[in-house]
Formats: sequence, C-alpha cells, structure tokens
Amino acid sequence: MSGIWGKNLRLSIFGESHAPAIGIVIDGLPPGTELDIENIRFQMNRRAPGRNKMSTPRGEKDEFEILSGYFNGKTTGTPLACMIRNADRRSSDYENISKTPRPGHADYTGFVKYGGFNDYRGGGHFSGRLTAPLVFAGAIAQQILEGMGIVIAAHAQSVAGVCDTRFEEVDVDKELVERLKASELAAIDTAKGELMKSEILKAREELDSVGGVIECMALGIPAGLGDPFFDSVESRLSGMLFSIPAVKGVEFGAGFEISRMRGSKANDEYVISDGQISTSTNNNGGILGGITSGMPMVFRAAIKPTPSISQMQSSVDIFSMKEVQLRVEGRHDPCIVPRAIPVVESAAALVILDMMLEGRK
Amino acid sequence: MSGIWGKNLRLSIFGESHAPAIGIVIDGLPPGTELDIENIRFQMNRRAPGRNKMSTPRGEKDEFEILSGYFNGKTTGTPLACMIRNADRRSSDYENISKTPRPGHADYTGFVKYGGFNDYRGGGHFSGRLTAPLVFAGAIAQQILEGMGIVIAAHAQSVAGVCDTRFEEVDVDKELVERLKASELAAIDTAKGELMKSEILKAREELDSVGGVIECMALGIPAGLGDPFFDSVESRLSGMLFSIPAVKGVEFGAGFEISRMRGSKANDEYVISDGQISTSTNNNGGILGGITSGMPMVFRAAIKPTPSISQMQSSVDIFSMKEVQLRVEGRHDPCIVPRAIPVVESAAALVILDMMLEGRK
Amino acid sequence: MSGIWGKNLRLSIFGESHAPAIGIVIDGLPPGTELDIENIRFQMNRRAPGRNKMSTPRGEKDEFEILSGYFNGKTTGTPLACMIRNADRRSSDYENISKTPRPGHADYTGFVKYGGFNDYRGGGHFSGRLTAPLVFAGAIAQQILEGMGIVIAAHAQSVAGVCDTRFEEVDVDKELVERLKASELAAIDTAKGELMKSEILKAREELDSVGGVIECMALGIPAGLGDPFFDSVESRLSGMLFSIPAVKGVEFGAGFEISRMRGSKANDEYVISDGQISTSTNNNGGILGGITSGMPMVFRAAIKPTPSISQMQSSVDIFSMKEVQLRVEGRHDPCIVPRAIPVVESAAALVILDMMLEGRK
Amino acid sequence: MSGIWGKNLRLSIFGESHAPAIGIVIDGLPPGTELDIENIRFQMNRRAPGRNKMSTPRGEKDEFEILSGYFNGKTTGTPLACMIRNADRRSSDYENISKTPRPGHADYTGFVKYGGFNDYRGGGHFSGRLTAPLVFAGAIAQQILEGMGIVIAAHAQSVAGVCDTRFEEVDVDKELVERLKASELAAIDTAKGELMKSEILKAREELDSVGGVIECMALGIPAGLGDPFFDSVESRLSGMLFSIPAVKGVEFGAGFEISRMRGSKANDEYVISDGQISTSTNNNGGILGGITSGMPMVFRAAIKPTPSISQMQSSVDIFSMKEVQLRVEGRHDPCIVPRAIPVVESAAALVILDMMLEGRK
Repeated sequence: MSGIWGKNLRLSIFGESHAPAIGIVIDGLPPGTELDIENIRFQMNRRAPGRNKMSTPRGEKDEFEILSGYFNGKTTGTPLACMIRNADRRSSDYENISKTPRPGHADYTGFVKYGGFNDYRGGGHFSGRLTAPLVFAGAIAQQILEGMGIVIAAHAQSVAGVCDTRFEEVDVDKELVERLKASELAAIDTAKGELMKSEILKAREELDSVGGVIECMALGIPAGLGDPFFDSVESRLSGMLFSIPAVKGVEFGAGFEISRMRGSKANDEYVISDGQISTSTNNNGGILGGITSGMPMVFRAAIKPTPSISQMQSSVDIFSMKEVQLRVEGRHDPCIVPRAIPVVESAAALVILDMMLEGRK
Repeated sequence: MSGIWGKNLRLSIFGESHAPAIGIVIDGLPPGTELDIENIRFQMNRRAPGRNKMSTPRGEKDEFEILSGYFNGKTTGTPLACMIRNADRRSSDYENISKTPRPGHADYTGFVKYGGFNDYRGGGHFSGRLTAPLVFAGAIAQQILEGMGIVIAAHAQSVAGVCDTRFEEVDVDKELVERLKASELAAIDTAKGELMKSEILKAREELDSVGGVIECMALGIPAGLGDPFFDSVESRLSGMLFSIPAVKGVEFGAGFEISRMRGSKANDEYVISDGQISTSTNNNGGILGGITSGMPMVFRAAIKPTPSISQMQSSVDIFSMKEVQLRVEGRHDPCIVPRAIPVVESAAALVILDMMLEGRK
Repeated sequence: MSGIWGKNLRLSIFGESHAPAIGIVIDGLPPGTELDIENIRFQMNRRAPGRNKMSTPRGEKDEFEILSGYFNGKTTGTPLACMIRNADRRSSDYENISKTPRPGHADYTGFVKYGGFNDYRGGGHFSGRLTAPLVFAGAIAQQILEGMGIVIAAHAQSVAGVCDTRFEEVDVDKELVERLKASELAAIDTAKGELMKSEILKAREELDSVGGVIECMALGIPAGLGDPFFDSVESRLSGMLFSIPAVKGVEFGAGFEISRMRGSKANDEYVISDGQISTSTNNNGGILGGITSGMPMVFRAAIKPTPSISQMQSSVDIFSMKEVQLRVEGRHDPCIVPRAIPVVESAAALVILDMMLEGRK
Repeated sequence: MSGIWGKNLRLSIFGESHAPAIGIVIDGLPPGTELDIENIRFQMNRRAPGRNKMSTPRGEKDEFEILSGYFNGKTTGTPLACMIRNADRRSSDYENISKTPRPGHADYTGFVKYGGFNDYRGGGHFSGRLTAPLVFAGAIAQQILEGMGIVIAAHAQSVAGVCDTRFEEVDVDKELVERLKASELAAIDTAKGELMKSEILKAREELDSVGGVIECMALGIPAGLGDPFFDSVESRLSGMLFSIPAVKGVEFGAGFEISRMRGSKANDEYVISDGQISTSTNNNGGILGGITSGMPMVFRAAIKPTPSISQMQSSVDIFSMKEVQLRVEGRHDPCIVPRAIPVVESAAALVILDMMLEGRK
C-alpha cells in the first residue's frame, strides 16, 4: 500500500491528478503548534506549476483547506487533515495512455498492479501533483523544526550536467538559505543557475527534457538521532526520498565518491572546535552507524528528466500487443528539479521531525 | 529502534560483536519450505572473515543454531529463530574506544545515543558482524525465490576506482551467476577482479583501506510488485540497503547518471519481444512509479572504505575533551566489498520476498 | 496516535465534531470493486442520529463525498478518501466543557493529553460522530465480504438489563439478518425489542440513560484466519471494538461465562457434519489459538450508558480547582446501543477483511 | 504473523514447546537500566509449572540466558534477546494430536493455518509455555515501571465460580501486593483462596478442569496516556491480553456490569481530593476516551478451563474424516489461573511501559 508513512509522525496521503481532490492526514503533530498559514502557502507555491517558463502552464492553484486537527490557529494534537481540490482538469489529454503506456511513466506498471482499474488520467495517483500534500506537511514540519533550531535548505547541485557549488564549499548562513528558498531555480552560484535555466529552456525548444541532482543540508540537528540497521537515518531518509516520483539515486555525505577514497581520507577525524566535539571533514554527511553525529546532515537525490516529452516515442498497444508510435500531448515541465527542491526539503523535514519526536530523545 | 523490519516477512535482529550471541527471528516464512542447510552455510561462508588475504584473520565460524520454527526439515510457518554464538572474542583490543571514538565508526554516535551504556566492544551492535544473521535470512529468502523463478546476483562493480563490466553489458546466465557466487571477489571481468585484489592488498600494506560499489541484479521478477510513494520498491530496497553498515549511496537503473541524460534518451521505450511487453533499454532499473515493470531489477550500493586502519588518526578524549592521536589496533579488512556482496544479495532477496508475499499479488 | 489501523487494509480517520469535516482514508482495498453507494448510505443511516425517539434530534445528514480512489464506479486500488462535512453545528452548547469536564466523557483526559489545545466542542475528536467514517468503511468491507460468502449481523443482546435471545439459540438465516438490519432496534425477539425501547424512553423521561450489550456473529468465515499471540483474531477484533467510544468489555463465544464452566463442558468436541469437520458446541466463538475454526465467529461488546444526561452532576473547575455542579445541556441519545449496532458490524467487517487480504490466505 | 508487538517497546517472540528453545527479543528498552535478575527469576517461577498440586508435575526450570543487549549489569539500549532452552521434552505424549485434534486446543486451527507443517508437539507455538518469555519481559517492564512509581498487582477474582473480594473493595497497599505476588494462588480473601484451591483439586480428581477470572490493577499511572480510537488504552491492553492463550473475555472498570447501570450511576463524578482532581467512583477503570484519567487502572480477563482433561472426548480423524474417541494423555494443570496471574501482570506492564515511552509523554 502506498499511502502511510512514519512512526511518531504519521502521514496518510490520498488522491489522483483528476480525482475530486488530493490530500493528506498528518497524525502525531505536537498539540498547540501555531501554524503560519502564509508560510505554508509560500512553500506550496514554490512547488506549484505555472510560475515561470521552466514549468508547465497548468493553472493549478494548490489552494488547500484544513479539515480537522486545527483549532483557534493551533494544532490540536489529533489528526490534521488537509484537502486540495483538483481545479483545472483536462482529462481529454490523457484518454489513450491506458492502452499505450508513456515511456518512463508508471502507466504500464500501474495498469499491471491495479489490473487496469487505476485512474490513469494525468498519471492518477502516480502524478507528481501528489507531492503537493507532502509540501504542505513539510512546511508544517519545517516550522516546528525551526522552533527547535533546525534549518533545512536545498539547491540544484546540477541540472543537465551544469554543476553548482556544493554546500560544503560555502558558509551556509541565513541569507543564503533565504535566497535559495526565494529563487526560481535555487543555485548557490547564481551564474550557474542562469546556465541551468538556459539548458532547461533549450531542452524545451527541442521538445526534450533534462534532469539533475538536488543537494539538501540540515543544520542544527542534535547528535544521537536515528538507530542502527533498519531504522538508520539513511534508511528513513532514503525511504522517503525514493517516494518522490523521478528520484533514482540517493547518497549521503561524499556518497558514491567515498567509494573511491581510501579510509585515511574518508574517515572524518574528530576535533574540538568551540569546545564542542566536531569532525574536520564531513564525508559521512553527519551520520555514523545510522545515527546523527551533530555535524550538518548532507544528502543528494538524483532526479531523472521529465518522461513527458513531445517527441515521437515507441510504445505498445497493450491490448493488441502491437508496437505503436506515441507523442505525449498535454503540458509538461522540461525539468522538474526547480519544483522538486521544496519537495526534497519537505521530505527531509518530515523524517527529521519524526525522529525528533522519538520517545527516548 | 533498530531491530525490526518488514511487512509480510518480518525480521528481528539482535546481538553485539562480543555479547554471548547474535541472531535473528524471521516471522512470516511460508510453512512447509524445505531448507537447504548446506546452501545456507555456503552463503554465510561467503560473508565470513578469515577466508583469504583480503580479509581479517578473525577465526569466526558463524556456526548457527536454529532455535524454533523448523520441524522435520521444513519451516513451520511460526517464527524461525537463529542464533550464532560469538566464539573468538578479544575484548582487550577494544577497551579504549569508548572514550576515544574511532573516526568513521559509530563509537561516538552510539555513545551519545545510548548514553554510554551500549556494548562498545568490537563495535557492539554496530559491528558488521550483525550482517551474518541477515545473510542467514537472505539465504533462506533466495531459496524460496529460486522456487519462484527469481535469481539474484551481485558483483563488485568497482573497487578502489577499478571498474568491472556492468550486468547490462553482458548476458547474465546461470554459469556467470554461479561463478560470481563462487569467487573470492565477484567480478564479471576476472582480469579486473585480479586488479581489484591487488589494489586491496596494496592498501593493506600501506595500513590503509579501500571501498567500492556493489551492483546487484534480480531476474525473473513479475511486473506489479511494490507501491507508489512510501512503499515504492526503491524505498523498501534502499531502506534495507542503508541498514548495511558502510553503505553511503544507493541508485537504481542508470541512477545518478540518468540525471545527466535527456528524457529522449532516459525513457525506456516499450517493445514487444518474444510476445512479451518489454523495454529496449532499462535506465529505470526495472522499476517505474515504485512498481516493478518485469524488466531486470538493477541497483548499486556505494561502500565506504573500512574505517578501521592502522595509521595514526586524530580523535578526542570525550571525557577530558582533549584532542588525542589514535591508532586502531586489532584485526580489520582492508576492504569489505568482497564480504558485503552476499549481504547486498540478501538484502535484495528479503525485500523481494516480502513483496512477493503481499496479499494482492 | 489515534488515527491509523490495520495491516493489509489500512484506515486513517480524522475529524472533530465541530471541525469543517470528519473522514477516513482507506488504503488497500482490492482494485475493481464495484461500490453499492445506496447500500453505503443505508448503513450510514442506521448509525445516523435523529431517526426516532430513541435518538438525539440532531439533524446530521452524514452526506459523504468520495475524494479519491474511486473511478468509473469502482475502487482503483489506491487510497480511497471519504469526507463528511459537519453541517449542523451548535458550538454554544459546549462552551464550558473545557473548564468543567462532563463525568463519563473524555473532556478531562483529552484536556490532559493535549494540554488543553484539543477541539473540545461536542467532544471534538472523541465524539461518537467519528464512528460515521468507520461505518462508511465497514459498509464497503461488508460488500466485499459478501462477495466472499461472509455475512455479518448484530443485535442488541441486552439493553437496560432486558435480554434478547442469543444467536446460538436460533437459526440465523437471510431473513433474520435482513430484519435485524432494517429494524430501529435490532432484536431477535421482537417483543424483547419493544421492552428495550420502552426502557430507553423511560430513562429519557427520567433525564437518564441506559446501556446494553451488542452481540455480533460472522458466518462463512474460512478456517485458518488469524495468528497465535499478538495478532490473534481476538486481539485484532478487541483492539478495533475498544476503539468504539463507550465499549467497556469484549468477550468471545461463551466469554466470561466460560470461566465458570468445567473443561468437560467448555471444550467444543469435534464432529463430522455434512462431511465437514465441525464442533458440537461453539463456546470458543469460532476461534481457537487465535485462529478461526470455520465455526461461526461470535462476540459481544458491552456498551456503557450515554454519559450525557440532563441531571445535575458533580464536576470540578479545573482552573480554580473547585468542585462545581454541572447539567449537560444539548441533545443526547438516552441509549446509543441502537446506533452502535452498525458500528460493531463495521468493526467486525474491517478486521475480517484485513485478515482475508493476508498474503498467505 | 504472531510474533511482533509494540510501538516504543517492541517484542518479538519465538519458539515451540518441543523446539530447541523459546525466547523473546525486546527492542526499545531504555539504556542503562539495571536489571534485578533475582526478581526476574522470582516472577518466572510464579508462572513455572511443577511448584504445587494445582499444577502439572513437568519439571521445566525456565532457566533463561540473556544473549544480547545487556552489558555490565545494565541494558544497552539495543535489542535484548533472551532464550529459554526446552529441557524436559516428552514428545511421545503428543504423537497423535496432529491427526486427531484435542477439543479446546489449537491443534485443528494450527493444522489448517500452517497446512500441517507446524510443530504440533505439546501444542508447539500455541503452548502456554510461550508465555514464559512474556513474563521475562514483563518482569523487566515492572522493574522499570516501579522506578516510575507504577505498581501492578493481580489476583484470582474468581475460580470455578468461587469469587474473591475485588480490588475496589479494599485498600491496596504494599503489604497486600507483596502477599498476592508471594502466594500460590493470589487471593485478597485468603479463605476464598483456600476454597478455590479445593475446587481445583476436586476437578483434578474428577479428571476435569476449571477456569476463572483474573483481576488486575495498576496504581500510579499518570493521566494522559493512550489515544482515542485505534490506540486506546483498552485497545492496546485487550490486544495484548487476548494474546494470552485461554483468555476469552476482557473488561475494564465495571465492564459488562456497566451495561446494566444507568448513566447517573455509571458516570464517575469529579471531586477534589488531596488537592488533586479525582473521581468518586471508578466505573470506567481509570480510562476515558481511551486515555488514562490518573485513577487506578482496573481490568479483568476471563480464563477458560484447561482444555487438556483426562476424560474421554469426541474428536475426528482429519485424514479418514471419521469420528473418534480421544483421551488426552500427558501432564496438565487442572486450572491455569494461578500460573496465568503473573502473565496478566506482565501483559499490563508491557503495554503501560510502551505508552510511558511515548514521545509526547
């Protein structure tokens, strides 16, 4: 089953791209938490489509309605349910995808799993639109974490092969974090950001799409979160990150690069800095033995290029079992990295909050 | 909590490197499954240390005793418990690691999480030795999966920067799979395997260690396993893979490489081959929308170099809060990739079996 | 956390009596199940208030809207979300209950648990109204179970001390089941049913309330469902039944009565009837060792009298810590047994369906 | 699956009556907890057979070995595994039960569920012997709870129809609790206790068995534990209690009796006593809306008479499908209530500790 996640904080998502609504039920929020609704809207708009040339012109507003768990401007401690109506539906665009699956999409696997009964319109339950409720929940989680002194930021570490500066190379301060959250395409090196944008627009002109890598950092996390083995921080975070459609790789700290290092270089040596135990490097991304070390948590997620492209592609008619040519109609993003950045931040926030609410912490 | 995993198949592991025993309880195994004890021993020996120059000379036998759930040579359907006694204990080697944590190990994070009460000897519960019960369970899972026509194989795709041929570049047949399982260091290209070995031995001579990447492939998996979002195949597999100590990255199909492709190249186009729906490429690693497509499942795990090295390293005395120099005594592997290969296979087998036992499949 | 239940079928409920809405997300429904919406309405009306003199005059319509997981009149296999708007709200009735808790209600315990931030209006999340989503889900579960040949029925085995005939004393046929489901107060012996009604109305006149015992039977359940110990059929069913507000006792088969029998009488002896293995008695209620035997599943739930009564009662002002006198204003049922009967049927249906969807069944 | 329970404290049990061992893995114990091994032995001996005429002469010693999670006399915080070897095995006694199931036992349901592959000897995994690991875990839980000021006691509220005084009728002090824990058959009224014993011995002489009701009380529990609905205190406790073989009914506070009361009598009115909010009665057993009120938690479990009796009973040969006569050979308790009392205490302790470890508490 797809829809339920978490231990101390539990999420239950629902919805399809063209159903009456999509939404989420959040169980386990601390009671009495004041919600900054404007900030939730801001976070959701970062993900929403139609804001610029890099994105589909779909006019989804992502206007949410809180149905329960919210009283006098604060959380009640009982399940908080949120619903987002599906406004702008153009089902006709999708009428044929059930019989001729779009390459790179879940049309075929969804058909097999659900015996053809799933709502295929717009990708149905597999639609990237289902990340909107995640961002709603993630925005709340980030608000709570900020109260605990934890800040989460993400940027496009690469798009179409254009690489941005890494977090570890700069001094991550409040100003940078705010600039990243405010920008159309979050990049530490703004020049690289512009280059990425032009690559995205070039791909669009050529009826193609591009992918990228999102790097995320969490600052202020106490040492001792997480567990060895099945509930390691990496296990929980990767489990959530791979829930995001289009993510095909996840790495922590130096990640795949560490596999080419020698132990003498890879090991993060301990030092005392400002009277605190710290490490001189952070190749383990703030996690050792599945448990946080108090160093910044750093991870990256690989995002595949948008499968929806307007070029002619080969597919099959699953009923006649004949090969056919297919051009994906409708409106698509030439690159989802910009809109996926707040989703990755949300995923991190939700996992970290789930751990912060752990009994023994 | 660290010790419990799974939905239809549930694992509960326990033990520390120097406790009386380590072990696992496996709940949910189909009743009446005949177990090939010899094959279980074979799999566990692939992981066991002391078999060759690439590994620590520790004489652990990993002799297991099945305590329950096994009757007349078959599984009963009730929890199958297995215990492995810790024979060769040399606690003296580890006496000081509680106060001066070894870089790259979980000594410090374990100390913080458990308030200094955890059994630190030999890494305690964080020891790679805890993967022995996983291989025991994985061997059983592989036996059951083979009966379902599913075969799992893994190899060292890279060690110390030396890269092996990839599965997608060759025809994976029974012979190759058996050769890989039988070799000291599983490599598709035996010449590259020898090169890797010499790199490992060179690192050992230089009192250092190296890491690598393990590639795993699962053949014969039906389409329709897994779920969207939180229970995606990638989420479940990565959650289990990141439970393995030293794994810092996981990718599926083309993985991070796909983030540099364009959609027109990344999309796996559908074709009819042998009257079956198939794809001409497999950049998505046999998984779309979190659900298996029927194509081979392919993923890679990045293994960091063994943190235990005999060179002098910087650490801190966590009580006096003074920086100190540390040389890790004791016996270590210069590279754990060879021994980690059967662990990765086991992780895959356990996740796939858990999904195969799903009600709706 | 309150809101999530189940293994193969997972429920997530939300809502408060005076929030914008209450609802449920049902994950794990088999795809392609045609829903009989009229039947769902019928079941929900059995629980709805305001239908007769035994119930509060509140005009709640319990009109539900399916938000997702439903396409072309069938379930999709993805989460099915249902929302019920809270129409007729009269918050003023409840303004003071946060400071002076009503005896027998959750006002005080809710205040302590949620630090006073919970929505207390109308009992908030603790309101019996939250059972409406359960009946929605239960109606769907019963439709699916009927297709599997499983029928569930319940009746008021006692109200205010007036006892009805027990299921085991009669021949439970289709006609009886339909009569029970159609009646205002389901009783096998209609004369006893009338007596119960007059007791309920008498209690109402005397500004008091009464309770009772609901007996439920499930026919057509295959042998072999459930598990020993923690997932026993009794554990799962009681866990769900005690989720229903006002249930204070649950028993299976002969229940508490069996504790006064001798083994020679209590043991259900095996016989062959119609070529099937059966038992001559059913003191174990169709469950042995936590697993179904194929005999009818029989259990009873004790329902306490409605705590809301219009008599003067003693309470405390939790802020001034002074004892006060309290009369519960507003509209209440003198007995909730009639409306609780479809809730108990729903609880049974959901637990049984969860087990029927088990992989190994 | 049978073997895994809990949220913040997780239990995984294993074993069969005649397997090499039975045991339990306990995950989530607070690190640094000093264990009183003598007290654990004392609790396990209360459950162990062969101590007096009321019990089977089986010489099981229940000698346990802690395999992990225990270091320097304290818990480590990692999974604590405990194994109990099955010493005195007389399999011959049980050779025929697989083909002719014993009435009242799980022989038949186990055969159906596990397809005849389960270890039937001595009831296998269904054996009451599996409660020994529960008492081991419960003893640890009680030690931790005592440090939190929580005391749990139980007594035989009735045996063979002979009723003991109820907890609410007496002043439950340290002396009474210790006397109950020390006595062969815990009864508040010792004269009634003697009467119960004679009834048990009389049943034994007549080759029969008797059952009873165990009442349990927990003192010192803070208000605010538990949750509404699916995780109500009653749901969690009943789920655990019905895991104990032979329990067929569970009730809280006045239980089934409350269904015959009127609201004006059933409601527990609030009063101020010793400056604390309290209730003048405790018909709700210290639980309202699924959440603890701070009043003593009181519940009762109905225990059926031991199914093993030496009288001739009717059964069937499940292979030839012929009715046969059966006399259960071997060694049985004429009443398991005395030995079940520490099991019920353990069940309560484990559930309460699981809730006490909750994040928001």
